[in-house]
Amino acid sequence: MKKVDVLIIGGSAAGPVAGITARRHYPDASVTLIRKEEKVLVPCGIPYIFGTVGSPEKNLIPDALLSKNGIDFIVDEVTSIDREAKTVTTKGGETIGYEKLVLGTGSLPIIPPLPGVDLENVFVAKKDVQYLNNMLKTLDGAEEVVVIGGGFIGLEFADECRKRGLKVTVVELLPHCLFLVFDEEICTRVEEELAKVGIKVMTNNKAKAILGNGKAERVQLDSGEELKADAVIFGIGVRPNTELAQKAGLKIGERRGIWVDRYMRTSDENIFAVGDCAEKTDFFTGQPSALRLASIATAEARIAGANLFKLKRANKGVIGVFATKVGDLVVGMAGMREKTAREAGFDVVVGTMETVDKHPGSMPGATALRVKLVFHKDSGRLLGGQACGGVTVGELVNVIAALIQSGMTADEIATFQMGTHPALTASPIAYPLANAAEMALKQIR
Amino acid sequence: MKKVDVLIIGGSAAGPVAGITARRHYPDASVTLIRKEEKVLVPCGIPYIFGTVGSPEKNLIPDALLSKNGIDFIVDEVTSIDREAKTVTTKGGETIGYEKLVLGTGSLPIIPPLPGVDLENVFVAKKDVQYLNNMLKTLDGAEEVVVIGGGFIGLEFADECRKRGLKVTVVELLPHCLFLVFDEEICTRVEEELAKVGIKVMTNNKAKAILGNGKAERVQLDSGEELKADAVIFGIGVRPNTELAQKAGLKIGERRGIWVDRYMRTSDENIFAVGDCAEKTDFFTGQPSALRLASIATAEARIAGANLFKLKRANKGVIGVFATKVGDLVVGMAGMREKTAREAGFDVVVGTMETVDKHPGSMPGATALRVKLVFHKDSGRLLGGQACGGVTVGELVNVIAALIQSGMTADEIATFQMGTHPALTASPIAYPLANAAEMALKQIR
Repeated sequence: MKKVDVLIIGGSAAGPVAGITARRHYPDASVTLIRKEEKVLVPCGIPYIFGTVGSPEKNLIPDALLSKNGIDFIVDEVTSIDREAKTVTTKGGETIGYEKLVLGTGSLPIIPPLPGVDLENVFVAKKDVQYLNNMLKTLDGAEEVVVIGGGFIGLEFADECRKRGLKVTVVELLPHCLFLVFDEEICTRVEEELAKVGIKVMTNNKAKAILGNGKAERVQLDSGEELKADAVIFGIGVRPNTELAQKAGLKIGERRGIWVDRYMRTSDENIFAVGDCAEKTDFFTGQPSALRLASIATAEARIAGANLFKLKRANKGVIGVFATKVGDLVVGMAGMREKTAREAGFDVVVGTMETVDKHPGSMPGATALRVKLVFHKDSGRLLGGQACGGVTVGELVNVIAALIQSGMTADEIATFQMGTHPALTASPIAYPLANAAEMALKQIR
Repeated sequence: MKKVDVLIIGGSAAGPVAGITARRHYPDASVTLIRKEEKVLVPCGIPYIFGTVGSPEKNLIPDALLSKNGIDFIVDEVTSIDREAKTVTTKGGETIGYEKLVLGTGSLPIIPPLPGVDLENVFVAKKDVQYLNNMLKTLDGAEEVVVIGGGFIGLEFADECRKRGLKVTVVELLPHCLFLVFDEEICTRVEEELAKVGIKVMTNNKAKAILGNGKAERVQLDSGEELKADAVIFGIGVRPNTELAQKAGLKIGERRGIWVDRYMRTSDENIFAVGDCAEKTDFFTGQPSALRLASIATAEARIAGANLFKLKRANKGVIGVFATKVGDLVVGMAGMREKTAREAGFDVVVGTMETVDKHPGSMPGATALRVKLVFHKDSGRLLGGQACGGVTVGELVNVIAALIQSGMTADEIATFQMGTHPALTASPIAYPLANAAEMALKQIR
């Protein structure tokens, strides 16, 4: 029987990072990663296969990442865990012993129980090369696509399909796209951009059934309206893949992830869970959180990997940092939006600043940049920030994320020392974080 | 006699921000700004006038910034300050009384005492519209330009002159361009990019004289070599403009700026100084610093403006955050580089990470991204970071700046929660800050 110090199940974002971190912190430990997939997709890159990148094969996590970090890997599927014996058994008939086991079994896209979801040409963001190649082929022959779900993944699919010349309609249950993430004014800005690039958005609408003869032909809405659809794509979220953990009797959390303590240990101290399969705790409230992101997965993996044989790092909980691009507009956020903060019970003050992302404004490519910061009125601490603008918004929300995680207050952010450059950032006079903080302070004083 | 609550001298970055901040914190105070210039240039935008932007008139700080914030402004020059009477007198013959005075008199470009520097067609980055229009006209008729000084301003002038089709040579005294700011490996990378775009760099070289008949024709180097030059541009630094302060008997600091306490008060408690004219203190060592940047100026102005009638904010000292673009390469840094940190007496550990700034790497426009972080070995705290890559480096160094200013350690940065997106950032697996921190930690353990 093969026996390893560290066995990792799952090859997507969290698994490899847990392995790399284990190798960095415990260089003498043998690390093996076992995964089902022959090839592993970059999870966040999946929508981009259909417009920008062109094929699943161009959107892979390279295996060299494992080999160059001294991690063995096996393509096989773990079917059960014997916690007593500290072994796993696989579909291929192998039994492997472990000292420490890391579960990175990820999540599965949600397919709602609607009539017609099993028709051909109905798709989700499945992390499977062959499936995505089939989807690509279908879209090649399609003219009209209906995307169900106006969250991040839904809008990214919609925009990429639009780039390949398809006529796209997005059906969203809530009053706005991205309404679970951004405050309303940013959602509206996104919807304007969607309209500008020719994507039709139907908010406050619900799909009732997929109609068609063998394959999808139309989407029927609750209102009775029917939309022509040569293909239907669901982007309505994921559920943690906890089947293996449940079979092994591990505790499951309120939000259906594998329960973990702040060191990423499951209810079995020799088994850790990381990424989408693991339960999340909110940074601000300490309550279970439904957030699931690749960036969170890797942060958790860096905690778990370091803690395997000695507790070194604690998880402070997820703050949530996102960004996406729709048409030419980039939107991003970190922490709590105003609505969420108020609903959680915080008395908040808000500061906003509008400027451009280069200076002077006559620099070519200068794009309007809007930042909204939300502060806890009593402590002055930053709770969250939202931004919309150009490509620099991706890292700008990471500045906001850093300020939140370090507990910076409005007053500290108002005098925050930043670097500025004509071709790269807003001007030092108008730098949006300092100015938005000042605008919020006016309401605290 | 006109009398105001707050009088600000200087119209560039620091002055207006001090005024805006004063208005935000003391809405009942009357604020007047007095400046010499009819029109005020965006200081960092000056090199960009010559290639990207096209004219000084397209590189102005709009006066609306003052009017919409309730700040009166006067175009005139203050010639003396009567500290006893709390008045200033101007060239135009006015006397204005103040409660609080803010000096934002800026800096002047250094012109070294070389033979020939007073010839026509010898230029510096002077904040003067007419001067720059004359410079623009000269460059229109030029073929070859010699830039003396391979720092930020020198390289920006060089690259913009190159963009307008001029043959450009940069003469740098030190062994590398940007050698006072970056560690050697980044300087080398910049020099490779300069070579790629066709800019000739002569390091370890010193200009001895400008030769010509009435106007510049050649630059003679110490080696005796002569370079053809239809125009010569000096970019070798600035000196604080403290003439007015000195005449008023205010204390001057070791680095020749107007001495200020940590609240930005000069040796006269009713007079504040901000920006390039004010003495700087280093964040890490507490020693006088020679750093002068528009972003520092605005941060100081936000401190001074808030402190005018009540001490609210303390200056923690300058950390230094820069970025620039040369050819297609963006380089940036925050805090101390490795060399400076070691020279200051810190035992340091360094971590580097190389990746690309989008993911997967097949995303169009993906650019190599390299980050180097320098940590204090004993405390684990981040002392500085350098990055080279594409346009997102401008905000990425602001993430680093936030981590430094909040005292984050290598371990905290390794598990830092960031947002990632295929079109906007490196992948969550390879995110360079977390990985560079891990690489440094390997040396601490």
